[in-house]
Amino acid sequence: MKRNDLCAKVRIPATTANCGPGFDTLGIACTLYNEVSLELNGPGNAVQIVVTGDGADTLPVNEKNLVLRSVRTVLDRANHPATNLRLTLHNNIPLSRGLGSSSAAIVGGLVAANAVVGNLFSRQELLSMATKLEGHPDNVAPALLGGFTVSVMQGERVTSLSLPVPAALKLVVCIPAFRLSTNKARQAIPDIVPHRDAVFNVSRTALLVGAMASGRLEYLSEALDDKLHQPYRAALIPGMAAVFAAGKAAGALGVAMSGAGPSLMAYTIENADAVGNAMVHAFQVHDVQSRYLCLGVDYDGACIVDLA
Amino acid sequence: MKRNDLCAKVRIPATTANCGPGFDTLGIACTLYNEVSLELNGPGNAVQIVVTGDGADTLPVNEKNLVLRSVRTVLDRANHPATNLRLTLHNNIPLSRGLGSSSAAIVGGLVAANAVVGNLFSRQELLSMATKLEGHPDNVAPALLGGFTVSVMQGERVTSLSLPVPAALKLVVCIPAFRLSTNKARQAIPDIVPHRDAVFNVSRTALLVGAMASGRLEYLSEALDDKLHQPYRAALIPGMAAVFAAGKAAGALGVAMSGAGPSLMAYTIENADAVGNAMVHAFQVHDVQSRYLCLGVDYDGACIVDLA
Repeated sequence: MKRNDLCAKVRIPATTANCGPGFDTLGIACTLYNEVSLELNGPGNAVQIVVTGDGADTLPVNEKNLVLRSVRTVLDRANHPATNLRLTLHNNIPLSRGLGSSSAAIVGGLVAANAVVGNLFSRQELLSMATKLEGHPDNVAPALLGGFTVSVMQGERVTSLSLPVPAALKLVVCIPAFRLSTNKARQAIPDIVPHRDAVFNVSRTALLVGAMASGRLEYLSEALDDKLHQPYRAALIPGMAAVFAAGKAAGALGVAMSGAGPSLMAYTIENADAVGNAMVHAFQVHDVQSRYLCLGVDYDGACIVDLA
Repeated sequence: MKRNDLCAKVRIPATTANCGPGFDTLGIACTLYNEVSLELNGPGNAVQIVVTGDGADTLPVNEKNLVLRSVRTVLDRANHPATNLRLTLHNNIPLSRGLGSSSAAIVGGLVAANAVVGNLFSRQELLSMATKLEGHPDNVAPALLGGFTVSVMQGERVTSLSLPVPAALKLVVCIPAFRLSTNKARQAIPDIVPHRDAVFNVSRTALLVGAMASGRLEYLSEALDDKLHQPYRAALIPGMAAVFAAGKAAGALGVAMSGAGPSLMAYTIENADAVGNAMVHAFQVHDVQSRYLCLGVDYDGACIVDLA
């Protein structure tokens, strides 16, 4: 690296959004990480993008790359002069599985670029930029802030609050081999719903936030139920009900789709491997290959791990 | 009182339900109280009911009386032998104003009768009985448990969680002179709603519970917005929007209908009297007479104040 080069390396957590009833609202950062390294190498317009891990063969390495677009958003707003760019992306978060890979890309690009321009932008400003790039706040908020987040949209303005989570909580995510696009999963949701279903989700969301905030994890089973998105999306994930039942039977406190799926998330305080194995087996019965990961809650959100 | 008489005196808080977005879910117990005294005077079937305060001239003093019906629910389930009954009710909670007077009556009757039968029933059992008598849990839960409560119905089973509330929070309730029946207010609500309105309330409810649990009252303004009941009920309360605006302009953090109305509740940490006066004045401009009360949060719920 030359003396006048700028470089930042950022670690960004995977995230599970919706968390059952909290559609487009709730999210949790998980201990599974992507890394984004950004180097600015003096004046110029050259771009180099190297991807390893998930998406190494499929992600665009041109101006369409989501990390690059996010970097450019910050550099443009900072009026940074044209510069040669090098991005090194290492991805552990699987793509299009409902674990926030696109939010991690966006947040990684924004935070790395913000670091190299001297942290011109606040977390709130980064949150707004990330939400605009992603279209909804429920993954970008925990990716940026860590922990268990609540997000509210008012027009284009986003408000996010990160709450502590009981340390005992473990997240067992069962990841099918097939992908599901968020757009396709969104199209399954109707424009109108019964008022009683809205109230169903309002009450479960309140119980979920209350249970998390007070450490009363015994309420999670009831609190994770949903009627606003999961029933409409079930047809897109063969075996979903059976996988939910298997996870609970193996000891999980509760189960929910992770984001728009297809990954399914069990919330547990013990027997994580038994829960994961039971879920994988239940998928297999429905001819869906899958694997599971036992994750914890990430409390830090995106953070700079190296800066030069 | 004869030697073999049984007597219990119970104090029950007023409650404000819904709290903006938390339709049929959220409630807060307030420092305004009814008192229920129950005496069992040996074998017999005589009933005497004396009411003072609100409803002294209008409440039934026969078997239709809601406190008596609640007392009978407990005595019957306890297989208590037929007994002469005397109920002395002192009401400070105004009737049919959205401050939980019927829930206070129910909870008062249940808790007083449970005391005289030796606390045969747990709080959870009393909560179930109260919810069945009332039809929904959002007022009976805080009346019984105190604090800020989250309630979820699963079929006929109710789960309620009481959460702490920041001590600085003050509740300014503006009480119109006219009454509004909960039934009439319920009929104004449609059977189906836009999915985006459901999500609107899910996100505000999450933010409200998170803000309360973490003491971040600055989020209340945004967290108290609602699209699932208040807009449909506004026509039943002339001047509602103006009263909300006046309360906020005078310094309230946020405003919401109290239960099904017609009382309107401002949430504030300062300027309580200024907020109350502004709300009363705004009602007056719309030809609605009203008064206001500055209340705190009750943390105890229904409690025995005398037992013999």
